[in-house]
Amino acid sequence: MSAPSVQLLLTGNELMTGDIVDSNSAMIAQQLKELGLEITRKVTVADEINLLTSEITSMTQQADILIINGGLGPTVDDLTAQALAKVTGTELKKHPDAYKHILLWCKRRDVELNEPNLKQVMLPNGCSIIKNKLGSAVGISLSYQNCSVFCTPGVPHELKTMMQEQIKPIIMSSLPDKLISQVTRLQVFGLGESSLQKLINEKLPNWPSSIELGFRAGFPLLEVKLSTHSNQGLQLQKKWQKQLLSILGDHLIAEVKDKPYSLAEHVVNDLINKDLTITAAESCTGGLISSMLTGVSGSSACFEAGYVTYSNKMKTMMLGVPTETIEKYGAVSQQVVEAMATGALHHSSADLAIAVSGIAGPNGGTTDKPTGTVWIAWGSFKKIQSVCLLLPFSRQYFQQYAANITIDLIRRYLTKSSEEPSYIKERAFKQVI
Amino acid sequence: MSAPSVQLLLTGNELMTGDIVDSNSAMIAQQLKELGLEITRKVTVADEINLLTSEITSMTQQADILIINGGLGPTVDDLTAQALAKVTGTELKKHPDAYKHILLWCKRRDVELNEPNLKQVMLPNGCSIIKNKLGSAVGISLSYQNCSVFCTPGVPHELKTMMQEQIKPIIMSSLPDKLISQVTRLQVFGLGESSLQKLINEKLPNWPSSIELGFRAGFPLLEVKLSTHSNQGLQLQKKWQKQLLSILGDHLIAEVKDKPYSLAEHVVNDLINKDLTITAAESCTGGLISSMLTGVSGSSACFEAGYVTYSNKMKTMMLGVPTETIEKYGAVSQQVVEAMATGALHHSSADLAIAVSGIAGPNGGTTDKPTGTVWIAWGSFKKIQSVCLLLPFSRQYFQQYAANITIDLIRRYLTKSSEEPSYIKERAFKQVI
Repeated sequence: MSAPSVQLLLTGNELMTGDIVDSNSAMIAQQLKELGLEITRKVTVADEINLLTSEITSMTQQADILIINGGLGPTVDDLTAQALAKVTGTELKKHPDAYKHILLWCKRRDVELNEPNLKQVMLPNGCSIIKNKLGSAVGISLSYQNCSVFCTPGVPHELKTMMQEQIKPIIMSSLPDKLISQVTRLQVFGLGESSLQKLINEKLPNWPSSIELGFRAGFPLLEVKLSTHSNQGLQLQKKWQKQLLSILGDHLIAEVKDKPYSLAEHVVNDLINKDLTITAAESCTGGLISSMLTGVSGSSACFEAGYVTYSNKMKTMMLGVPTETIEKYGAVSQQVVEAMATGALHHSSADLAIAVSGIAGPNGGTTDKPTGTVWIAWGSFKKIQSVCLLLPFSRQYFQQYAANITIDLIRRYLTKSSEEPSYIKERAFKQVI
Repeated sequence: MSAPSVQLLLTGNELMTGDIVDSNSAMIAQQLKELGLEITRKVTVADEINLLTSEITSMTQQADILIINGGLGPTVDDLTAQALAKVTGTELKKHPDAYKHILLWCKRRDVELNEPNLKQVMLPNGCSIIKNKLGSAVGISLSYQNCSVFCTPGVPHELKTMMQEQIKPIIMSSLPDKLISQVTRLQVFGLGESSLQKLINEKLPNWPSSIELGFRAGFPLLEVKLSTHSNQGLQLQKKWQKQLLSILGDHLIAEVKDKPYSLAEHVVNDLINKDLTITAAESCTGGLISSMLTGVSGSSACFEAGYVTYSNKMKTMMLGVPTETIEKYGAVSQQVVEAMATGALHHSSADLAIAVSGIAGPNGGTTDKPTGTVWIAWGSFKKIQSVCLLLPFSRQYFQQYAANITIDLIRRYLTKSSEEPSYIKERAFKQVI
């Protein structure tokens, strides 16, 4: 029995005008690939009822599975339910499950149900709803002309969760047994896509074709995916996964089981397990590291204070960095960043400190210390370590990368890693003093 | 005379598997928009000859202009020319201009002409070529069934240059003089999609159909788009835009001219223009506000210090909040958040301060102060204002929303807005004391 044919219909004026780039269809394709399914044809139209009905009519004739994305929202340009009712010759009716969902959704947010929200519960008579854990719009599932139709929301994180948790299991249960598949997802930090591909080419040149290797660059973490859709691959996967892990070393953050964890989640959980507290003294990252750590639920157990010392004066006033040190070595220097870490330890009584001082740009760089120069210090009263890197990127990317590297350095400190991370190997910067 | 209808056909296996995200179609759409043209329908298929011929056949029947993207390269999976010849009932022939192009291309690169390159000059008999300044594959232009067909390369920078310099002028010269189009994009904060739709339904029930209204929910900002493609709409747009602006009030952040600005960019630029400095004292937002402000280039001119006082002890040590105040009223209280703001003003000597203390959850809520409760204070030594809101969302969304609201409150403070923002109207929370 062959795999069912899948088509995808995307709706949205913003997709036609070029105001946004469609990333939803790639995500849907990736998720279907894990089931061994491929999209054969994809149509995108504006939010117009006649365009929608004509596409749905022809696509349900051609495909076994039709996924419709977008047009489920509360506004007048959301027409998917209406088009579906028209094509299937049914009426829009208040769907009891959808109504329950919207009531609960409003209640949880403490807002009143309004007319536009009520529009979202008017669905084609006889359809089933697909739960939406994150948004007000439920999905729609129905069968027409032997085609299974799934309507999904356009908001990417709602779509992603709905595909993962609701639609994939439904499709999977309808697939013939012989479509086998195994997927492993690994989270990696500090190795880029092309560097890792090069490493694999060099060290594992005989990588078997039955195990597909995929990379998904989702900054700051790279996701490496091993998947196999054959019996042969199933037998080989364990062995080759082990080989891949040996190449990754401590750049491997974790294997993704349910949902991916951030670097900060790993560090916060490790700190709590080890009963340690941490503080952050930030100049060029401007509070981003504190914000990433306190973004993790439960972080109050390991994080009490953060110091955003953006100016030189504040480095002295808030952290006690001697003005002479700043004058002599400059704010972006080993001496200052280590003094910031020590000062933060003193003032907060935390067990560990991290400190960052650098030039985020676009202005402020010099020949000796160009834009992208960053000093990072980390450690305890016993010992403060530091490193200087050159991250010559845009301001936003520089701040994100510097913050993530700092958190990764603490992750490695906590696990006593002795390996030199690739970003130090590749980006260590010796200042001309 | 109405605008010609444009359809877009994209070909490429990598577009179907989700291995790459299609950015070409957004770029083509943007370029056509400059001519007042919109793509009405977009189809994407894998590199298969039968799929291609069937789409080309039906699309040339429906559209006045068909742009085909991809499939012009030298490899076996590049099938556009072949499909086009099949559909139009012509043969592939060595095209003299294409041959000249490839000879020149090879000469400039000092490489020898090879068999795969020669495949690229075999084009449907009678077609014209479109010059490609950057790559080996020329474009194809022909007319079939009263439809103008343009075939373009998949490589983004080649496509972009070809669209700009070759195809746009050809299309433009064929357009009726009277084609018109006008688009306005408005950035809005504090009004959700459904609330705004409700307001429009109530207050502007006669919104004219010739002015299209579109919404794009991009947290934290909502983008509202007015567009018109008719003479009638053009005349009406000014008037209705004015009506819409009166509904939006100070929820309007700005009209988007070139690129959208973030809330933080608005505030930082306004502070710099007014020669004011600001500091932030953060508990539950954990550094996010500092990080958003310092994310803006040039922010060092208005931001010197941020205090992440996550624990009660640190509120006292870093900001001088009296322990008795915390004990008496709790950390999430008007008294504490105002003392945090005052303390931050004292310690930093900034002109303005913002302070936030709340319960981000998922744990830590009580009956009196449930998860989602947040006190926000803002102002100067002259006067500190404060407000308590209930934002019962996930931890991440709570932190993001609280930080954005705080920055919006400062934006309104700087512009001396006297209007009550919707999030205060809807989410103000009276604590039971």
